[in-house]
Amino acid sequence: MLSPTPLASRSPAEWRAAIRTGQHVGHTSGLADRHVQGNVVVLPAAHADDFLRYCQRNPKPCPVLAVGEPGDPSLPTLAAGIDIRHDVPGYRVWRDGVLADETTDIAALWQDDFVAFVLGCSFSFEQALMDEGVAIRHVERGDNVAMFRTSIDTVAAGPFAGPLVVTMRPFVAADAIRAVQITSRYPAVHGAPVHLGDPALIGIPDITRPDYGDACEVMPDEVPVFWACGVTPQAALVNARLPLAITHAPGKMLITDLLNHQLAAF
Amino acid sequence: MLSPTPLASRSPAEWRAAIRTGQHVGHTSGLADRHVQGNVVVLPAAHADDFLRYCQRNPKPCPVLAVGEPGDPSLPTLAAGIDIRHDVPGYRVWRDGVLADETTDIAALWQDDFVAFVLGCSFSFEQALMDEGVAIRHVERGDNVAMFRTSIDTVAAGPFAGPLVVTMRPFVAADAIRAVQITSRYPAVHGAPVHLGDPALIGIPDITRPDYGDACEVMPDEVPVFWACGVTPQAALVNARLPLAITHAPGKMLITDLLNHQLAAF
Repeated sequence: MLSPTPLASRSPAEWRAAIRTGQHVGHTSGLADRHVQGNVVVLPAAHADDFLRYCQRNPKPCPVLAVGEPGDPSLPTLAAGIDIRHDVPGYRVWRDGVLADETTDIAALWQDDFVAFVLGCSFSFEQALMDEGVAIRHVERGDNVAMFRTSIDTVAAGPFAGPLVVTMRPFVAADAIRAVQITSRYPAVHGAPVHLGDPALIGIPDITRPDYGDACEVMPDEVPVFWACGVTPQAALVNARLPLAITHAPGKMLITDLLNHQLAAF
Repeated sequence: MLSPTPLASRSPAEWRAAIRTGQHVGHTSGLADRHVQGNVVVLPAAHADDFLRYCQRNPKPCPVLAVGEPGDPSLPTLAAGIDIRHDVPGYRVWRDGVLADETTDIAALWQDDFVAFVLGCSFSFEQALMDEGVAIRHVERGDNVAMFRTSIDTVAAGPFAGPLVVTMRPFVAADAIRAVQITSRYPAVHGAPVHLGDPALIGIPDITRPDYGDACEVMPDEVPVFWACGVTPQAALVNARLPLAITHAPGKMLITDLLNHQLAAF
């Protein structure tokens, strides 16, 4: 009998199989790290058009990697064989805008009119930064990235609206400039920063107290750099108070077959 | 008899002809503004190799667009017919590191061993910024850009050494990010910024008091952004105290036939 594949060299398909069978129910950070991971949103078709228009109008926080057909749990452009009902380690079920349940499988909830959305996430550009030698403090510490609600409104579509949420990573100026260059290559995973410097200018009163994630101090020789964040559409989804919506649980993403560098614009 | 070409539509060749014949002896800012202008340095061949190594080691402040053959005043890769002895509106003559003369023609000084260097200048990337809708305050005011000596040393070569000199342009954060993106496309004309944010981190004690050029205030919602500057090699040249060296006079550049957008890396 063959020995199992070491975890570090598992392919995206092997990770999805482990997740589908309940062998892996944890975070996906660092798994198959050359490959694109995505934020997941599942909605009834009646709201899917509005949500897609919301994403189209707010491409920096809501970069759409794929949209499924109504009732179809496959996402063939992201990988052959994906079944979005099983292939995410954790899901959150929202009813009327309130978190109603957290589960590892949504087959029992699936409806014929469900539409699956997969949105780009910052794991891809963080990998690109690290590959180019730009260290990221929260990754080195094993922390979650610091996230903040801003005073910048997204552009509404139907019931979807709310503030832009951003992630913050501190860098010395030379790395901040390099980070603008590198992340500009990745418009499909939030792209270039939306702000740098004074947090108060985008409505963040205290940089040491994030609204989500872990605090990360900004050293005296550093500039805080802010990127649009995938929590933005999740917040808009909660604001919309839909009767039923499903998202991935924080940090438990869909692992796709796409390579991060396939998303590079140039 | 044909009426003369309106100034705004004069070609680079027409401007060089006007300069060669002494009809134009002023600044070249804004002239033939789709075309690349260059900083000029003329040195005896004995020092040219060291100077070229200095430029190679410091490509951000010293981006070499062309180097002539010893004794040859033409620069065919920049335009047919250039004669560097006549085609710059103003020259400065340096003896032993001291400004000895300012003149509109250097034919009388020309030596068989003179080597002409043309280095990229920020006019090209400023034009690219404005073409993309990023306003530049000192240009709107008709001022010279604010320049500062920094605490960053260039890498020496032979007698050439000295501090990195930078230009400063203030922008709101969104424009600062856009400016990093746009100027990154132009490595041949200083490329991406070298610093942004706190001036003290690069040895600038007072942002309101430039070492060269005109002061430009940084508004409370703005970030100062710093680019490597073509004054750097001129300062290194003065430091080297060569028996004889010639540069263009400030603001009086060589107008080439190259289009600014030909320099775009992508």
